[in-house]
Amino acid sequence: MASAANASSLCLSLKSSINSSSSPVSRSSGSSDVYLRLKNRSPISLRSSFFSNSSSIELNQVNNKCLVNVNRTQFKTSASSTQVMEPSPSKANSRVPTIVEVDLGNRSYPIYIGSGLLDQPELLQRHVHGKRVLVVTNNTVAPLYLDKVVDALTRGNPNVSAESVILPDGEKYKNMETLMKVFDKAIESRLDRRCTFVALGGGVIGDMCGYAAASFLRGVNFIQIPTTVMAQVDSSVGGKTGINHPLGKNLIGAFYQPQCVLIDTDTLNTLPDRELASGLAEVIKYGLIRDAEFFRWQENNMPALMARDPEAFTYAIKRSCENKAEVVALDEKESGLRATLNLGHTFGHAIETGFGYGQWLHGEAVAAGMVMAVDMSRRLGWIDDSIVRRVHNILEQAKLPTAPPVTMTVEMFKSVMAVDKKVADGLLRLILLKGPLGNCVFTGEYDRKALDETLRAFCKS
Amino acid sequence: MASAANASSLCLSLKSSINSSSSPVSRSSGSSDVYLRLKNRSPISLRSSFFSNSSSIELNQVNNKCLVNVNRTQFKTSASSTQVMEPSPSKANSRVPTIVEVDLGNRSYPIYIGSGLLDQPELLQRHVHGKRVLVVTNNTVAPLYLDKVVDALTRGNPNVSAESVILPDGEKYKNMETLMKVFDKAIESRLDRRCTFVALGGGVIGDMCGYAAASFLRGVNFIQIPTTVMAQVDSSVGGKTGINHPLGKNLIGAFYQPQCVLIDTDTLNTLPDRELASGLAEVIKYGLIRDAEFFRWQENNMPALMARDPEAFTYAIKRSCENKAEVVALDEKESGLRATLNLGHTFGHAIETGFGYGQWLHGEAVAAGMVMAVDMSRRLGWIDDSIVRRVHNILEQAKLPTAPPVTMTVEMFKSVMAVDKKVADGLLRLILLKGPLGNCVFTGEYDRKALDETLRAFCKS
Repeated sequence: MASAANASSLCLSLKSSINSSSSPVSRSSGSSDVYLRLKNRSPISLRSSFFSNSSSIELNQVNNKCLVNVNRTQFKTSASSTQVMEPSPSKANSRVPTIVEVDLGNRSYPIYIGSGLLDQPELLQRHVHGKRVLVVTNNTVAPLYLDKVVDALTRGNPNVSAESVILPDGEKYKNMETLMKVFDKAIESRLDRRCTFVALGGGVIGDMCGYAAASFLRGVNFIQIPTTVMAQVDSSVGGKTGINHPLGKNLIGAFYQPQCVLIDTDTLNTLPDRELASGLAEVIKYGLIRDAEFFRWQENNMPALMARDPEAFTYAIKRSCENKAEVVALDEKESGLRATLNLGHTFGHAIETGFGYGQWLHGEAVAAGMVMAVDMSRRLGWIDDSIVRRVHNILEQAKLPTAPPVTMTVEMFKSVMAVDKKVADGLLRLILLKGPLGNCVFTGEYDRKALDETLRAFCKS
Repeated sequence: MASAANASSLCLSLKSSINSSSSPVSRSSGSSDVYLRLKNRSPISLRSSFFSNSSSIELNQVNNKCLVNVNRTQFKTSASSTQVMEPSPSKANSRVPTIVEVDLGNRSYPIYIGSGLLDQPELLQRHVHGKRVLVVTNNTVAPLYLDKVVDALTRGNPNVSAESVILPDGEKYKNMETLMKVFDKAIESRLDRRCTFVALGGGVIGDMCGYAAASFLRGVNFIQIPTTVMAQVDSSVGGKTGINHPLGKNLIGAFYQPQCVLIDTDTLNTLPDRELASGLAEVIKYGLIRDAEFFRWQENNMPALMARDPEAFTYAIKRSCENKAEVVALDEKESGLRATLNLGHTFGHAIETGFGYGQWLHGEAVAAGMVMAVDMSRRLGWIDDSIVRRVHNILEQAKLPTAPPVTMTVEMFKSVMAVDKKVADGLLRLILLKGPLGNCVFTGEYDRKALDETLRAFCKS
């Protein structure tokens, strides 16, 4: 791991490079080239397209130089508008998927995003190699979408046959015992190396199915169809798969990339309100840590998101995936920058642990955690009050918590934070906001007093 | 999978390319360049060195051309000699390891081979990143070598601490339940991503420890210390790791490369005679499928190998690893050529299944299987009688079986062969010898009558 100083300087220098060569004005319209010097990066590039807009971000490495080419069409922003600001495609166009292309050399894959995509069998079928498919889902999602997905995988293609395995729903089943049910089904069905595993469900299903695909016969094809906002904006990019161990979360797994990710925003219509809001916490996070323009878009479009507007969601998911892909591309090995994706997660993890897993959803704990991180950033004098107000406002719009549960104590926070993975040489490194909106640091260099004050401000004892 | 015709033509064209541009005489002395045209190969190269001899084989791909540069010092061969033919290093030199460098881009690693290597802590320690090591071994090997290995990992380096987990010995424990014991130990010991897993034992330990290393925290460093001939000449190259499922062998796993492989030939002194011979079956296989010169060396040096002469073993292990690395480099994705590593394994697998696993060791079944494949090749008119005789002779010298168990029937062979992984479109593809010694094909295009005749010749009913 890089030292705290290195990690934060990496983060800051990246920001300053972008700022110095590309003003906020020029970023939001037209094109700009940013040159970054990176060490030991593997060649990687990221392209995105959104409907008819020619919006693209490219990361291309030549030797030790990384060229980030930001090329966006102008987005009209209006603080008073609650409309989706993207040009509305006509209904005839509504099924043209938005595509985020995650370019990882020979492990590249597209993320398709849009309404009604499960009614377009060709999207999935072009990524099914071989004739056998195993759909891995759970007993909540199966009654809603399993038939539809099997139809999308096999319609008009009598050569392809689909099996399915339905797992019990819930994080507590994300273990080796449940994983073995996937292997059992695959082996009983005599699937061979050319089969494709399809994950249909939220983050737990995606993580388990991905790890099963990575391990079955030492690796078979894998497609993700995430049905929760959290899975769509978080699990779609990064290739993390795995299961829990009785002594800790996600301790056993693999980095494994899918053939494609298909996000049909229509599946959000059956998502419970709390699950929807929980996913939005991660969407808001991307704006705070690195994308002020996206944050402003969210401030204007939260009503549309809460109304499950498919076009608003398509854009929110697209920008979230692009932001995550950019961070992962710049820091595939988790040396520092990637840690910034965990804004609010250290406080949030303490809430999940102290309050009891399953009481609050992950995104709810992250929301309260972000408020605490923002509060601490203000106490350090690193951000001004307006950011604090805007974070409160947007979380309230999304019906997310803005404080930890009242039963949390300072001691509960401290005991969990003491064993956090981000502790290095006894120093807890945190992701904190610093500077104008959209800038953050990952650092262990902060006044301990500010942390204490934040904990006391949010806890009764 | 490539079709049978494609697979065999790939194999044949490779052979003929080498033969046409490099005569057997020029291969065994001096240097020669061979150009092969390959499709869709990843860049890969293989270098080897043996003591002070400048012996090297390089595979380098430029665009679609693969340059195989064979550069060997002259080996004196004498049919009547039973001496090790390599120049004997002086005793003072006996601890200079032979190194086979497996070059896989950023997954490259060295294989160190030699006597007394576990007494050279620097060999292992240069590959231990981080401060924590977990040695995975079994209850047979632990009493013999665990202390020695822990000492080699930690001597003179107080910053490094080693834990160990001792698994029950045997193929029947190569399952998920035993694998979990490795995770339990790693997690209880609070190992982090910078730890190193060390496999100390035979193939079962190597496969399980490798898969555990691939999966723990989504991948940690891994070192192999194989203590059986079978593991040294087979598991050292190829990156295959995994466990068995109740319904089949090696169905769950990962391709995962080690940081290094350390083969101390002194560990063979405690290996039971049958285990030693079993490993030699795979050594003999490399000669038969692609290295006539190595086969001749074995014919002359089998007494030295049976006497566990460390220099003879060092050479035999080196040439075996080089041969396997060359095949894997040319066919990382198992499209055909790599299948030739399974000479005798289809017949052998039928013996292991029909006769009962654990009755015969893997190499014993492979030895009898090779005799049957050679018999069938002769019946097809693809090889002459002298090869049949030489195979019998060398297996007898190695005290390996030259026929299947008397209880095996034609039906037992046929029922297992019908579900072999190499069946494609109802056709069983086999690895058979064809042409001069050291040439083979992987093909489904052979006269069925020859297979029937071979089965009847080796079975009473």
